[in-house]
Amino acid sequence: MSYEEKFKALSGLPAQPTVPPNCNYVLYKKIGNQLIISGNGPLNGGTIPGEFTGKLGKEVGQTAGYQAARLTAMNLLLVAQEALGTLDKVEQILSVDGFVNCTPEFNQQPAVINGCSDLLIEIFGDHGKHTRSAIGSVALAFDICVEIGMTLQFKH
Amino acid sequence: MSYEEKFKALSGLPAQPTVPPNCNYVLYKKIGNQLIISGNGPLNGGTIPGEFTGKLGKEVGQTAGYQAARLTAMNLLLVAQEALGTLDKVEQILSVDGFVNCTPEFNQQPAVINGCSDLLIEIFGDHGKHTRSAIGSVALAFDICVEIGMTLQFKH
Amino acid sequence: MSYEEKFKALSGLPAQPTVPPNCNYVLYKKIGNQLIISGNGPLNGGTIPGEFTGKLGKEVGQTAGYQAARLTAMNLLLVAQEALGTLDKVEQILSVDGFVNCTPEFNQQPAVINGCSDLLIEIFGDHGKHTRSAIGSVALAFDICVEIGMTLQFKH
Repeated sequence: MSYEEKFKALSGLPAQPTVPPNCNYVLYKKIGNQLIISGNGPLNGGTIPGEFTGKLGKEVGQTAGYQAARLTAMNLLLVAQEALGTLDKVEQILSVDGFVNCTPEFNQQPAVINGCSDLLIEIFGDHGKHTRSAIGSVALAFDICVEIGMTLQFKH
Repeated sequence: MSYEEKFKALSGLPAQPTVPPNCNYVLYKKIGNQLIISGNGPLNGGTIPGEFTGKLGKEVGQTAGYQAARLTAMNLLLVAQEALGTLDKVEQILSVDGFVNCTPEFNQQPAVINGCSDLLIEIFGDHGKHTRSAIGSVALAFDICVEIGMTLQFKH
Repeated sequence: MSYEEKFKALSGLPAQPTVPPNCNYVLYKKIGNQLIISGNGPLNGGTIPGEFTGKLGKEVGQTAGYQAARLTAMNLLLVAQEALGTLDKVEQILSVDGFVNCTPEFNQQPAVINGCSDLLIEIFGDHGKHTRSAIGSVALAFDICVEIGMTLQFKH
């Protein structure tokens, strides 16, 4: 199956992400053969599923955090799809910048951001392997439990 | 008006930013047609206006936070001006990495970082539109309430 | 001395860094003449020296934080060495993204990340000068006290 076919076959694909109201930025920019994608959260269109708001180590368990990162990856790929026309133009994923909304005691950020990384490799195989940071954040916009930005290289 | 003229006409332009004493880095680097600018804060030359120190959700209100992000954007553009000779060489803003010093309860990071984003679009119009992250930080250097890094594409 | 010779002459070089078990990412990616390196911590191979776990402002003093950032820089350069074959292919360091695990009151993030910056300049001189951010993080993976990512330009 092509990247595009694998992506469309996923269960739980959310509605297309949009820039939140009153926010003055765009979801992606291109430079040369690089695509830069804004920090996204575990949204379904304009709504945040209740189980994905709050902090890891408090309201949000590690399994929910993983699912939130997986949902965020789907949003990142919906943006990439819109930017490129099709995911089949992805050459390789370059970097994933993951932030986990958490308590001072929580130290399993990588296990949470794996939800994003695993999906990328599920879709793109070796071309989905990426560099990564997984950082604890004291608070995130609208209480989302993860925010993840991404850059990738595409074929023209 | 040109970008450069619009920028010079702004009220409240701060003094030229500098690397803090004993800090071993530079304000910008170029690679190809990209300019990378270090994380900057709401400074006026070497001094931090008192209303811009502290945390959102505690000492710093949302309006002051917005103004701090706007002042930070001015500093980023002063660095770009120094790097390029003139802001008229800006092709497009690529990305803005915003960090907001805040309490665990504060969840309006985007409204704060808008202070930076709005200024960029005020100066560069559609070419000022950028990707963005807006992340809560438990603490920032010298108690500044925001720190923002930026990358842009320039014309040679 | 060449970059490579200077690096090999350092005392306290750690064992080669590896991706932590169950983590689905890679230590570096190349695009064009750029090398992107994943967020690394103050590790010695797979182990974290006890003095480098915890938070600045609490368990970890500022001098230990500086040493942790220095050790992290060594890890970043071990990755670069593996990616490029030799550090002599480094053209210039571009950016350093530093995160400091700290209390809400700690405000000396730059003094900590200097441990990384100083080492880069010790090895590469003017070509080691880089842009930088130094951000407070509420928590980091496995309680490491710093996490630092890096990008650099290399010669083919």
